Amino acid sequence: MTLERAVDSDREQSVTDEVLASFDGTTDPRLRTIMTSLVRHLHAFTREIRLSEQEWEKAIEFLTRVGHITDDRRQEFILLSDVLGLSMLTVAVNEPTAPGATAATVFGPFFIDNAPEVPLGGDIARGAAGTPCYVSGQVRSTDGTAIIGARVDVWEADEDGFYDVQYSVDHSAGRGWLHTGDEGEYRFWSVLPVPYPIPHDGPVGDLLVASGRGPMRPAHLHFKVTAPGYRTLVTHIFVAEDPYLGCDAVFGVKDSLVVAVDHHTAGAALDGSVSERDWASINFDIVLAPEDDR
Amino acid sequence: MTLERAVDSDREQSVTDEVLASFDGTTDPRLRTIMTSLVRHLHAFTREIRLSEQEWEKAIEFLTRVGHITDDRRQEFILLSDVLGLSMLTVAVNEPTAPGATAATVFGPFFIDNAPEVPLGGDIARGAAGTPCYVSGQVRSTDGTAIIGARVDVWEADEDGFYDVQYSVDHSAGRGWLHTGDEGEYRFWSVLPVPYPIPHDGPVGDLLVASGRGPMRPAHLHFKVTAPGYRTLVTHIFVAEDPYLGCDAVFGVKDSLVVAVDHHTAGAALDGSVSERDWASINFDIVLAPEDDR
Repeated sequence: MTLERAVDSDREQSVTDEVLASFDGTTDPRLRTIMTSLVRHLHAFTREIRLSEQEWEKAIEFLTRVGHITDDRRQEFILLSDVLGLSMLTVAVNEPTAPGATAATVFGPFFIDNAPEVPLGGDIARGAAGTPCYVSGQVRSTDGTAIIGARVDVWEADEDGFYDVQYSVDHSAGRGWLHTGDEGEYRFWSVLPVPYPIPHDGPVGDLLVASGRGPMRPAHLHFKVTAPGYRTLVTHIFVAEDPYLGCDAVFGVKDSLVVAVDHHTAGAALDGSVSERDWASINFDIVLAPEDDR
Repeated sequence: MTLERAVDSDREQSVTDEVLASFDGTTDPRLRTIMTSLVRHLHAFTREIRLSEQEWEKAIEFLTRVGHITDDRRQEFILLSDVLGLSMLTVAVNEPTAPGATAATVFGPFFIDNAPEVPLGGDIARGAAGTPCYVSGQVRSTDGTAIIGARVDVWEADEDGFYDVQYSVDHSAGRGWLHTGDEGEYRFWSVLPVPYPIPHDGPVGDLLVASGRGPMRPAHLHFKVTAPGYRTLVTHIFVAEDPYLGCDAVFGVKDSLVVAVDHHTAGAALDGSVSERDWASINFDIVLAPEDDR
């Protein structure tokens, strides 16, 4: 290290030291841990890349755009976390260790709290366009016990790749929740998921373009499964042979979450109803880890 | 490391590896360097603190608030960068090495582009409340040469601690620019700076409170000095004996930027005018580094 570089290094380290010391009075020990770790890592980044003042300004402008495009229907900060792999890493850090538990994946920005309840076997599509798809399976514990009365929330995009909240009309479709039956079973009608791009007309989309990355997500259906005594599971099922399984813009794919789709011609469906259109079916069992896992 | 932890570590590393690989197609090498470094450091932070999903959600909510409070008159992302010391570290990383050059400090969020020009000796206060303060000095090169025609931009808060842009009325005050004269000299009337809190009624203020940190900045006057052939200098002068010099909320203080203030009773001022009020004066020479420094 030259003398000049050593002087630089001392000057820069003294800034970092001063900032770290400013958190000495933080009474919540967890907040102090988080903030001092964040400062150390962000400062290490800034020093490592020798951030220029113009680049700092561009970063401020970028974050400002992310903030201003975010509203009740669009969460660009979640998208940013997703495309940087921070959402998926957070999932990994918090993943249960119980053997056999269904793997988790990213939550995504499109869940909403007030989706409608549907009966077992009901239709969550409720007008969302797409090939009818019958989804069924069992919710059970890692010890094999069926979980009766688990709450299963599902949400998905329509065949044009849009969630209901992405339309300007205020109509709930492609989402709903139900309780599992006496054998832990669940079943509902929906539409067959298709691949779609994450919203890419904003700053996160610009970042993807500049990075030579695509915005596509492989076809998937979101699940959130909750039951007393068990860890909440947030996951997707992905459709086998989807061309984007290897390049999910948000890094959400896990092999164990890729499921086969059975395709059927119009006629009698699995639940005894008659489908006037060709339809599809997916079977997927869900295994929850006990609440005290970890 | 237990087997369980090793499995965790592999799983988490595989997420990071996948994200880093996604930038392989980035054609701009600088952007690729920045993004891969950012991913490595943010992932290291997330793993180190074992970020919980609730904490991730709080971070998303915090950034969303920062975005939504930011507008044309308030830049909460700059405040956030400031209180995390990232602004000051960026200054340090880009500081000229030329011996004798005036030290730089943070830019802050209150500079605006269309401030009025004033003549040498003119008044930049233009209605801003406060004790009249005459500021003068010379702009010169590190080799001692006077820099004629350098542009000196100055901006400051009034005696209530507010910049003009923080008032709802659209009136420019406490800011202006001028050119140095034939001996590199500059001089102007302003108001004596006072300590003030950074805007702390938003998410950055909440972070400061939670961290047991204060929002105060020691009294200062902002300078931006530009001249062809020289590196642009962005700095402040701080007022000696200010009680907040040791705990600047944004870490901007450097000893070499702390200047003495002379206090005068009403009467003849340094420029031959007559002040009806008690007034103050500050002398501060500014030394610019050549453009090719570094």
